Amino acid sequence: MFTLKKQSNKSNARLGVLSTAHGTIDTPFFMPIATKAAIKSITVQEIKDLGAQIILSNTYHNYLRPGLTTIKKFGSLHKFMDSDLPLLTDSGGYQVFSLAKLREIKGDNIEFQSHIDGSKHILNPKKVVDIQVALGSDIMMVLDECVGLPSTRQKAIEALERTSRWAKISLDYKNKLDKKSATIKKQLMFAIVQGADFKDLRLRSARELTEMKFDGFAVGGLAVGEPTKTMYQVLDYTVPVLPVDKARYLMGVGYPENIVESVKRGIDMFDCVIPTREARHGKLYERKKQGFGKGFYETIIITNAKFKNDKRSVNQGGLKNYSRAYLHHLFKTQESLGLRLATLNNLEFYIDLMKDIRQAVKQGKL
Amino acid sequence: MFTLKKQSNKSNARLGVLSTAHGTIDTPFFMPIATKAAIKSITVQEIKDLGAQIILSNTYHNYLRPGLTTIKKFGSLHKFMDSDLPLLTDSGGYQVFSLAKLREIKGDNIEFQSHIDGSKHILNPKKVVDIQVALGSDIMMVLDECVGLPSTRQKAIEALERTSRWAKISLDYKNKLDKKSATIKKQLMFAIVQGADFKDLRLRSARELTEMKFDGFAVGGLAVGEPTKTMYQVLDYTVPVLPVDKARYLMGVGYPENIVESVKRGIDMFDCVIPTREARHGKLYERKKQGFGKGFYETIIITNAKFKNDKRSVNQGGLKNYSRAYLHHLFKTQESLGLRLATLNNLEFYIDLMKDIRQAVKQGKL
Repeated sequence: MFTLKKQSNKSNARLGVLSTAHGTIDTPFFMPIATKAAIKSITVQEIKDLGAQIILSNTYHNYLRPGLTTIKKFGSLHKFMDSDLPLLTDSGGYQVFSLAKLREIKGDNIEFQSHIDGSKHILNPKKVVDIQVALGSDIMMVLDECVGLPSTRQKAIEALERTSRWAKISLDYKNKLDKKSATIKKQLMFAIVQGADFKDLRLRSARELTEMKFDGFAVGGLAVGEPTKTMYQVLDYTVPVLPVDKARYLMGVGYPENIVESVKRGIDMFDCVIPTREARHGKLYERKKQGFGKGFYETIIITNAKFKNDKRSVNQGGLKNYSRAYLHHLFKTQESLGLRLATLNNLEFYIDLMKDIRQAVKQGKL
Repeated sequence: MFTLKKQSNKSNARLGVLSTAHGTIDTPFFMPIATKAAIKSITVQEIKDLGAQIILSNTYHNYLRPGLTTIKKFGSLHKFMDSDLPLLTDSGGYQVFSLAKLREIKGDNIEFQSHIDGSKHILNPKKVVDIQVALGSDIMMVLDECVGLPSTRQKAIEALERTSRWAKISLDYKNKLDKKSATIKKQLMFAIVQGADFKDLRLRSARELTEMKFDGFAVGGLAVGEPTKTMYQVLDYTVPVLPVDKARYLMGVGYPENIVESVKRGIDMFDCVIPTREARHGKLYERKKQGFGKGFYETIIITNAKFKNDKRSVNQGGLKNYSRAYLHHLFKTQESLGLRLATLNNLEFYIDLMKDIRQAVKQGKL
């Protein structure tokens, strides 16, 4: 359940609280990604210490490995990975369309081959709910079809219609399960607005989905290669038609400035691989100044020779005793501790950013 | 300085305290290895939390990367890697003979090419002291020549004689530096007994070295491919001729049972890559029962299919909330968290083993 706490006067930014079976979460928030039931080289305890309130994992990946037999043995993904944080799981729609081999949609079934071993599988809206029931997701996402951008209008319409139909199937199915299980009833379910960058299609998708009683609404199909301006335009006309009393989740976004701009457009929830993926490439996020104006952060490439003897830390947080020179050394010598510290730095940056954003909205500055 | 606290009645095992510039260390102890100024994926704080009292790093590797300019900028390797633990550094002799390319001994100089970029370098006994002064090593090792086993008598004699000569050069040089610097004076220096598996040569090496005022003595040239029986035989005749009032360090050893057997032969200090290297290959150490009798531990290959749904943890220490199934999953999906947790498991096993050994000697059981 989402409770709106404050609506900004300066923008469409807002503060709220999202209640889940594993606790409440202050919005707006960012979800560190544990795609395959693990955050890259980081423990859940470390993420909690940074102030993360929730993590995200992936239906497609967990379905393939470790697989439902293992998860069921443990009772939930939380227990499997030893986490007491709330958990949101992607539906797997994006992954089955981007990773899986030889996929084919037959009716409401997506037939595909595992990208790992070529084994054959079928996903459909109900099965995706079943998987997320097994995972014990605090927030489950309905199976959707996400098209890349640019997209033809015809393709966008087909994906939108399929997404709406699958959303209804998913919700009806979950409502049935809710009657049998108080545990399942506590699991939230979000729908995903599609429609590419066609305004009328986005509005249609939002209308069709918001007529159903979902616990929250995601804006999907963005951050798929379009210019940033396009993304903001889509948000400008899509977010206002989403219900005020439900959480709004912008999937897969993004760079820090994208997050700030999206918060200003009324988004409450974010996830993105950027902090962890860029850490792997030695790209570290550094906060430069208060506020969110031009140049409030920079990224540095830690392998750059200029850091070889640099005694300064990257940020002033939990890693302030580690110098750039040491991180440079760890990357140059391929020491795995480097990846770990870089990932921690970037996640701390993102989590601190969200704290600052919430504070700014609270103080009427954003 | 080494202080003997207790000599066992049951064996040559002993308890002591080794005082260093960064604090005292209870013997016998095991040194986690930070070859290139980092323990594989683990922070110094984590190692301290496990109860590690000292770490080991490597002169050859640190000399090449990050290099002395960087280290000098920080003042010590401790400061560079943000560690307040005592530090022992290998002399680099073993590495220059095993890793470096085109090495050639000319007088007391070893000319070699870096295994990283082929750049040309020279190491000699004095330079190795200088490097360890720069690193700020609490315990520096003299440059030695380590021969593999089996070795010809002639080769063993040459290495022994060179090692003795280099030890004298190193100690004389350090004594000079001590007069100029109270900081350097606090750095301990250990010599390394060579002689392959020839009893008379080992005794000669020990005699030549113990005539000099070193702070401790290492037994080198073992764990280089010989049968375990040979290693124990060498210890059986070498350790008794080492001074009772100096610490004794068995370099590069070994498996848990080797450590127990060597403690019983009077060894105080150990280092080995086994716990970290085997962790990388998914081989985890599991304590099975109290004491050090047959079967007191086992190793498991965590990637084995039989662990896929195994809810038990590997050990009952700090990782007791992580199941074998989860570790299995992390290794199967190549998640870097798996390497980290496996390394932590094995280091905890080794550090706990040393605690148990000290307790057993204290209680007169070993």
